[in-house]
Amino acid sequence: MLFERVGIVGVGLIGGSLALAARRAGLVRELVGAGRTPANLETALRRGIVDRVVTDFSAFGPLDLVVLAMPVGATERVAHALLPHLGATTILTDVGSVKAPVVAAIEALGPGTVPFVGAHPIAGGDEGGAAAAAADLFEGARCVVTPTPRTDPRALDQVEALWRGVGAVIERMDPAAHDRALAWTSHVVHVIAYALAGAVGVSGEELLRCAGPSLREVTRVARSAPELWADILMTNATQVAEVTAAFAGELARFREAVLSGDMPALQALLDRGYHARQALERSTR
Amino acid sequence: MLFERVGIVGVGLIGGSLALAARRAGLVRELVGAGRTPANLETALRRGIVDRVVTDFSAFGPLDLVVLAMPVGATERVAHALLPHLGATTILTDVGSVKAPVVAAIEALGPGTVPFVGAHPIAGGDEGGAAAAAADLFEGARCVVTPTPRTDPRALDQVEALWRGVGAVIERMDPAAHDRALAWTSHVVHVIAYALAGAVGVSGEELLRCAGPSLREVTRVARSAPELWADILMTNATQVAEVTAAFAGELARFREAVLSGDMPALQALLDRGYHARQALERSTR
Repeated sequence: MLFERVGIVGVGLIGGSLALAARRAGLVRELVGAGRTPANLETALRRGIVDRVVTDFSAFGPLDLVVLAMPVGATERVAHALLPHLGATTILTDVGSVKAPVVAAIEALGPGTVPFVGAHPIAGGDEGGAAAAAADLFEGARCVVTPTPRTDPRALDQVEALWRGVGAVIERMDPAAHDRALAWTSHVVHVIAYALAGAVGVSGEELLRCAGPSLREVTRVARSAPELWADILMTNATQVAEVTAAFAGELARFREAVLSGDMPALQALLDRGYHARQALERSTR
Repeated sequence: MLFERVGIVGVGLIGGSLALAARRAGLVRELVGAGRTPANLETALRRGIVDRVVTDFSAFGPLDLVVLAMPVGATERVAHALLPHLGATTILTDVGSVKAPVVAAIEALGPGTVPFVGAHPIAGGDEGGAAAAAADLFEGARCVVTPTPRTDPRALDQVEALWRGVGAVIERMDPAAHDRALAWTSHVVHVIAYALAGAVGVSGEELLRCAGPSLREVTRVARSAPELWADILMTNATQVAEVTAAFAGELARFREAVLSGDMPALQALLDRGYHARQALERSTR
């Protein structure tokens, strides 16, 4: 048993799946849920994801760990509201897709060593909410953990043990490096999907009649909730803007090769992408 | 029986699948294959995709239909070499991803009405060659057919009957409109995938450690053969360059919204993409 009692604030796809997985792995005795949507908390209770729910943080009781699993833009505010109700040894962690601003904001809430560990499990799905939570969501997935010099080493150990216990592979990274990497591997990927789907959509019916499997596949992540992605992209604004510009520069290289009829240049660009995609295929999930 | 004898020049994924599907549907009595790779033709023979193969177009014998199913950049040259061996009533069709230059080139080979029908079945897969051919590849898929004022109406009827017979849904379009639409729905989609995979690849190991399902999915079409896509992109150079620039303009709108912290603008862009993707989901395959 890693934790006696764990609070999950935001029992959605990620928070709910972590609760299910931690219970299945025997890592926690009691799970207590909180969140802003009563219907979702009822689903979480009915599915046995949490043992009880609270509508006020004061009702949590003593907690070993609190997982902040709400949209990343709300994390700082919720952490601030939660803090007066936590014991000195309660570990705090989050699961957000952007790390540097959240880590900085929470570390600014207190002096010295902080029992907060930023974490980001790289897993997800189209559907959100407790209804979509699954105990195996993190099996074989990466979980990036972003300690800083101010992170309490015991808290780091415990949070990493939790993620390992639910099947994730831990990657330690600097918060800013995480945000830069995720801007490439996830945030710009979503910008591309929403931008392409939208552009094809406004171009009208004739284009939709020519839509094949490749367009469907490349734009599939644009089925994710827009408000969630507005929040993530805005929280990581600087990195997202830089990476989007860098990616536009990559597109320009293809465009120039095509326009100038430079077949060796075009072939080299395609070969580079092909081989990188093969390497991606070989890397773990 | 729609055709007595059909020649398939290029018995790969598309040509081979069309042969299998046409035979299964009872549309053709004899299928004769030709191509530049002896090992692939042997596979086609062994799998019963074609009844015999020829190494010289003169050995085809009288044909009702010839399907040009090679890389699009080679189509005009092969059509030119093939023409002296065809009867006056032999129908010629192709399956290429770019239509305007191919249609114009083949129509330029003779005066008046031409028994050539440009066609493009919107179907495919990662794997190519006769080994990957499947009789059900075109079931429910679109097949764009691009007649011009010079297209022989009988040839058009027969080619459309063939595609309908193998399960495809016919869309008639102007060749240039097809190329514009496909630049959006397929060609720029591949440019994006190769460009993103390549950019992430050169950015190094740290990024690959953060690669999740969305990056894998958006770049999956970059597993297609680069030489095939070099050929398609270069053949449709003007449209690909224009659409790539237009797409970069879409990315710039996201970038500006993010950089200026304009949440309503970002939310509107994401909503537009989300709803367009929903519409795409509802449209037929």
